[in-house]
Amino acid sequence: MPTESTESHRIADVRITPVAFRDPPLLNTVGVHEPYALRAIVEIVTDSGLSGLGETYGDAGHLARLRAAAAQLTGVDVWHGNEIERRIHTALATDTSKAGHGMSGMVTGSSTVHRVLSPFEVACLDIRGKAVGRPVSDLLGGAVRDRVDYSAYLFYKWAGHPGAEPDDWGPALDPAQLVAQARRIVDDYGFSAIKLKGGVVAPEEEVAAILALREEFPGHPLRIDPNGAWSVETSIRVGKELDGVIEYLEDPTSGIDGMAAVAREVAMPLATNMCVVAFDHLKPAVKADAVQVVLSDHHFWGGLDRSRTLGNICDTFGLGLSMHSNSHLGISLAAMTHLAAATPNLTYACDTHWPWKDADDDVIVPGALTFEGGAVAVPTGPGLGVELDRDALARLHEQYLACGITERDDTGYLRRFEPDFDPTAPRW
Amino acid sequence: MPTESTESHRIADVRITPVAFRDPPLLNTVGVHEPYALRAIVEIVTDSGLSGLGETYGDAGHLARLRAAAAQLTGVDVWHGNEIERRIHTALATDTSKAGHGMSGMVTGSSTVHRVLSPFEVACLDIRGKAVGRPVSDLLGGAVRDRVDYSAYLFYKWAGHPGAEPDDWGPALDPAQLVAQARRIVDDYGFSAIKLKGGVVAPEEEVAAILALREEFPGHPLRIDPNGAWSVETSIRVGKELDGVIEYLEDPTSGIDGMAAVAREVAMPLATNMCVVAFDHLKPAVKADAVQVVLSDHHFWGGLDRSRTLGNICDTFGLGLSMHSNSHLGISLAAMTHLAAATPNLTYACDTHWPWKDADDDVIVPGALTFEGGAVAVPTGPGLGVELDRDALARLHEQYLACGITERDDTGYLRRFEPDFDPTAPRW
Ligand SMILES: [Mg+2]
Ligand SMILES: [Mg+2]
Repeated sequence: MPTESTESHRIADVRITPVAFRDPPLLNTVGVHEPYALRAIVEIVTDSGLSGLGETYGDAGHLARLRAAAAQLTGVDVWHGNEIERRIHTALATDTSKAGHGMSGMVTGSSTVHRVLSPFEVACLDIRGKAVGRPVSDLLGGAVRDRVDYSAYLFYKWAGHPGAEPDDWGPALDPAQLVAQARRIVDDYGFSAIKLKGGVVAPEEEVAAILALREEFPGHPLRIDPNGAWSVETSIRVGKELDGVIEYLEDPTSGIDGMAAVAREVAMPLATNMCVVAFDHLKPAVKADAVQVVLSDHHFWGGLDRSRTLGNICDTFGLGLSMHSNSHLGISLAAMTHLAAATPNLTYACDTHWPWKDADDDVIVPGALTFEGGAVAVPTGPGLGVELDRDALARLHEQYLACGITERDDTGYLRRFEPDFDPTAPRW
Repeated sequence: MPTESTESHRIADVRITPVAFRDPPLLNTVGVHEPYALRAIVEIVTDSGLSGLGETYGDAGHLARLRAAAAQLTGVDVWHGNEIERRIHTALATDTSKAGHGMSGMVTGSSTVHRVLSPFEVACLDIRGKAVGRPVSDLLGGAVRDRVDYSAYLFYKWAGHPGAEPDDWGPALDPAQLVAQARRIVDDYGFSAIKLKGGVVAPEEEVAAILALREEFPGHPLRIDPNGAWSVETSIRVGKELDGVIEYLEDPTSGIDGMAAVAREVAMPLATNMCVVAFDHLKPAVKADAVQVVLSDHHFWGGLDRSRTLGNICDTFGLGLSMHSNSHLGISLAAMTHLAAATPNLTYACDTHWPWKDADDDVIVPGALTFEGGAVAVPTGPGLGVELDRDALARLHEQYLACGITERDDTGYLRRFEPDFDPTAPRW
């Protein structure tokens, strides 16, 4: 008989460190990315001396909720996910603020408890994995693939932040520039699927961009995501124009009813990370046949185990499953990779903002996660398989303090340069 | 830093032992329980020397499928649930037989793969728990209650098996005898909820029995389960008569459409372990609003982890959750108790046939599981917290060999005494 580790692993300390990393001026339908993106790094240390990592949004309102939650977690065993959720629910019971969700108004309506729970759950899984000497994927049922495919994520963008030099990527404001961006990102990373963040310019221009991408990349599945910027009528028109061209149409319009109206008229699957962002939304979406693909995101679906449940629900109700991304660092990439590896029905390439991050801007020791052929090999070491670089964490925390940004505000930033900018949907 | 157990736990050996235990002549709508109930005991041994237990149906067809599955599991790590399911799926790909599901025609349509997977999954969880020194409930998110409530399960029954002496319980064929049965079982076990297996005599007699129980037990939630024996019209009539009397009405009629028709007309929740017995049934049931409570059962829902997913699906789609039982031994009672303890929304008392089993007929070392106040304390030792009694296993296996029963056949047994008995639903 092997030695049994009957040791308890109770939460003894939780550290929450806001960090900022450089971000290019990527455009979306509500505005443009500011010069720095925010994240919060969560470290849990147990009374047994193990530690685990989580990563989440860094907005001030969210940070305050993370701290309120963390204060209630001392003494809980890292295996007791139900109890951790219960305590966070209690800690946030009086929280009625809607601020600081970290997604600049594009993802609203997700569960506050699940958004706050997520980084703690991931950190506890990291610790559990270390305690049993297994990768997190094993704690989620075991990897069904040893590499996880990600997609190229194209953005309309300015040449550089106003007042600064043009960045390394340069401008992308028309089909030719987007094709050039795609060529570079595909050549650099090997991605085999391509997504365009839309809702930025008139739909006919975005259709032209997709058609140009189709010509340049005849074998790559394509997607476009205007973040609900279009009316039902516009969505149907674009959906018909792109029939046979894209693998799914992501959030063309807002709300379950609007998506259902579009779904009745277009041939391709509709995907969402806007109208189904919490478990409460699944029943009305299923009843209305509003969407055919759900983009999971463990950052707002309550962590990896609950995201696995979401995957099972999608499988059960005949919905496809893909994965959503916000600007993120290596801890999140590791978590996303373990989750995707252990989710059999996650058959679409996952979104990631990874290529837009400066390689030097991260909080983990380099080398654990690399892209090859558009995919990341699933870490096989204990836990998440990534290690905190304390010097880098301190540097990115200094960057957070120095940058002065405390809330993601894509709209406010764009309005500094276009005071009349109005993100109200539908824009077209 | 504590020692990390990086050892692998690969399946090295699987033993499947059919057993039989004495069972009283309990009546249901398709027949009567034979003198012996069958189960199969699954033992998995790993290359690391750990072993785990599972329990499932003992019918010949099911045994053959268990053996076919077991032959494919050598070398799989006990943490790799996805791979175990994949191998069982492959092993059974050519299996088209419908025989030997162990439920005498009352639960049809469950997933063959999930029914076969279940005991292996439970045994692997038992091993994982032992490897990390934790109860199985911890591997399911942690117990949210330290005791699990079960319900008194009343049956119409004969005085004894034909040709044998009357058994200790005596006959229960009218309301007064059922009330006496309930009084004894409630006094002995402390149950605080009561279920009557119906579909045996005319609905008006069963309504009279429920009303007699209500009078004798004014504070106990009551349920009746005729196993789909009634037409939609009869179900609606009984549902209206029992409005305000029972907490839920279980499978009054057959099929999702029939249940939906009843649900539209009666006030109380409808529960099922007949029309929703596999993940495939959830979407049509939700779309039709056919049922309000699902009775989970890890024996046909693919094990404990998948049953937890079922619980999450019920929570997500606004369905209540209860738990179904067949005649079972202590390994199953342990598994049911860990699952129920770790499932926050399992708020109904679970069904169990436990009191109908002779205390001497079990395969586990006595003492691990006891009823107090109608509840079983959740085992806190590593794994399931039960230990195989090899002498008892050998004795119950001998009993299996000697009894000559290889398929549960409630209908055939009843027809030996009532040759014209016809179980075809609706009977009323
Ligand atoms: Mg999106
Ligand atoms: Mg039933």
